[in-house]
Amino acid sequence: MRERIFVVGVGLTKISRWYNRSARDLFSEAMKKAIEDAGGLKPKALVVGNMTSGVLMEQESIGALMADYSGLRGIPAFKVEAACGSGGAAFYTGYSLLGSGLVDVVAVGGIEKLTEKLTSDATFALAMAADREYEVFYGASFTGLNALVARLYMSKYGYTREDMAYWPLRMHEYASYNPYAQLPRKTDLKTILNSPVVADPLHLFDCSPLGDGAAVVILVRGEEKAREVAKTMGRDTLVEVIGLGFATDSVDLGSREDLLTLKSTVVAAREAYEMAGVTPKNIDYVEVHDAFHITGYLALEDLGFAGKGEAVKLWKEGRFGKGDKPEVNFSGGLKARGHPVGATGVYQIAEVVMQLRGDFPGYKASDPEIGLAQNIGGIATYSTVAILSRRR
Amino acid sequence: MRERIFVVGVGLTKISRWYNRSARDLFSEAMKKAIEDAGGLKPKALVVGNMTSGVLMEQESIGALMADYSGLRGIPAFKVEAACGSGGAAFYTGYSLLGSGLVDVVAVGGIEKLTEKLTSDATFALAMAADREYEVFYGASFTGLNALVARLYMSKYGYTREDMAYWPLRMHEYASYNPYAQLPRKTDLKTILNSPVVADPLHLFDCSPLGDGAAVVILVRGEEKAREVAKTMGRDTLVEVIGLGFATDSVDLGSREDLLTLKSTVVAAREAYEMAGVTPKNIDYVEVHDAFHITGYLALEDLGFAGKGEAVKLWKEGRFGKGDKPEVNFSGGLKARGHPVGATGVYQIAEVVMQLRGDFPGYKASDPEIGLAQNIGGIATYSTVAILSRRR
Repeated sequence: MRERIFVVGVGLTKISRWYNRSARDLFSEAMKKAIEDAGGLKPKALVVGNMTSGVLMEQESIGALMADYSGLRGIPAFKVEAACGSGGAAFYTGYSLLGSGLVDVVAVGGIEKLTEKLTSDATFALAMAADREYEVFYGASFTGLNALVARLYMSKYGYTREDMAYWPLRMHEYASYNPYAQLPRKTDLKTILNSPVVADPLHLFDCSPLGDGAAVVILVRGEEKAREVAKTMGRDTLVEVIGLGFATDSVDLGSREDLLTLKSTVVAAREAYEMAGVTPKNIDYVEVHDAFHITGYLALEDLGFAGKGEAVKLWKEGRFGKGDKPEVNFSGGLKARGHPVGATGVYQIAEVVMQLRGDFPGYKASDPEIGLAQNIGGIATYSTVAILSRRR
Repeated sequence: MRERIFVVGVGLTKISRWYNRSARDLFSEAMKKAIEDAGGLKPKALVVGNMTSGVLMEQESIGALMADYSGLRGIPAFKVEAACGSGGAAFYTGYSLLGSGLVDVVAVGGIEKLTEKLTSDATFALAMAADREYEVFYGASFTGLNALVARLYMSKYGYTREDMAYWPLRMHEYASYNPYAQLPRKTDLKTILNSPVVADPLHLFDCSPLGDGAAVVILVRGEEKAREVAKTMGRDTLVEVIGLGFATDSVDLGSREDLLTLKSTVVAAREAYEMAGVTPKNIDYVEVHDAFHITGYLALEDLGFAGKGEAVKLWKEGRFGKGDKPEVNFSGGLKARGHPVGATGVYQIAEVVMQLRGDFPGYKASDPEIGLAQNIGGIATYSTVAILSRRR
């Protein structure tokens, strides 16, 4: 019999190019907000998702550093890295710290500062999600590798750049309501299609932006503790983690069986659905990892919400919007909410939690009961899938 | 009631400056050995301790990469970073994955390649264990910070460089029997005292060497599974994890209450002793984190094996050697077995396991029943303490 684990607090910074703020400054803001949102409950351990602190900040020991600057010096704390999926992996780790009985209140955080050096340095750092010896050495950038996948998808299923562009279009609209979003403004198809090329067929507006941000969620073990916090905060809703899945794949794309299937997402989703005792049909609200429009579409297919090759068509027809099941990425997604790499998976969890509680301060889902967050690292070298359920 | 967790397999590479071998090559050797040592049992998840892969190998996604190259593509896998304590933090994480019920066979690995770039780059990378903004920016190196602590200790308790030198002297002797050791050769006091200065009062022979290595241990949940493996391997001994502690401190030394106490070790040890229901007097065998002789001595004091300021005196008198209780660092310690940063904590666990099983292929402890491993990151910014017990 597994322990029951609940998310009782969330804290986010606005995502931006925070040239004037340090990682410890951003992180402590998120932690302070999360502790307040958890009725003052102090975490007894901290897991921090982060990818690039070594190369871009010339700083490791991020776990203890963030604990200390958040007023939590002394607690067990460490960093978890799974490329862009570091936040989701940190959540999986935080869940297990609670589930094992080692700790009874855990904070899972994510922090990334991509603007510490030049944009070219950030591009270099993000390419560490690819295989240094078999891809990056030969000149591949991370966007370039995603472009290969996008081109293959478009070619195989006969989609145009315009067909694909409805993803960023809608993400920008949703983000315009999100106070934490890096790009909170609407756009139009013409702007998307005419934006500068980054790695053909991916243009600027098809890609998530470089940005800095920090996110924290606080987890507890047992319904009693979760009810206490809810009472303190005057909430009638608990949010329970009912399913978790985690799988990996090769780092290099050349070793994959099928470039158009995020196999690790398929496996992680199957595990999470099974653990939760639900199917894709039961999911009301979803946040997927759209680092590029292509990964957003593939995620919808590989989570079981669309047949292979159909996500773009369904999306263009207006599916997955307000009132549909599931509703997808009302945060604005990585595309427009932003993608502070190691923090992204934690943003997603926080957003799903707020949608389930009904207090997301942006574009609101339609009273969802069951939500899902999918975070990937690399091109699904890592996938974590978390399923959360509202409890009254 | 906590789940019972057992270590059923260990695998180590020899530590060396492996200029001609890659991280994936080293790691897969350690994994292959660990799986063989666990009777062929395949891990269902992998946690990898590593600190410097970003800066020195220009590679993240280490978790999935190591899983893939070890023949385990697809399993949940990620990297854990806690500076030089990454291996111990990975072990803590692996324990919790099992304890939570998410996975039933976990591999905890560690890998570090310090020789990918120049020695000056390695020095830069290791300084990421210190505070970039408040220490490293002002010119501090990691050895320099340890030298401050060593000087204060020697000054406060009236010890000379010669008094301190008995640590490396004995470590080199023990390492001479260890087939995995980087420096498997005896030395003498004169050589230690006359070795080149690195950061006064620390000379070359007072410091652990830069080296590469990989280590893996395999853990299972439940006595039944552990007995199955033991039977397959013809062993009459199980090794159970009976205590675990983890604590942190500030990253920068300037914020510490007392430079001569590894406070996080004190706290982690207290937790581990309490969980195991033992006291320091019950411990038969110990591996401590002697990145420098000073941290070895402080560890003995802060784990409760010597009074404050007494470790050097006791050590010089011959305590903690063969037949004493506890026996300490028969591997040769970080000083002479070597210190492949993120792998070190996993080497320690593997060494304690082999001493408890009676099959350590080096200097043998005197039939120990209870062993302890202490791994630190930074100057005890992180401490993990694991207590393992032999079961018949």
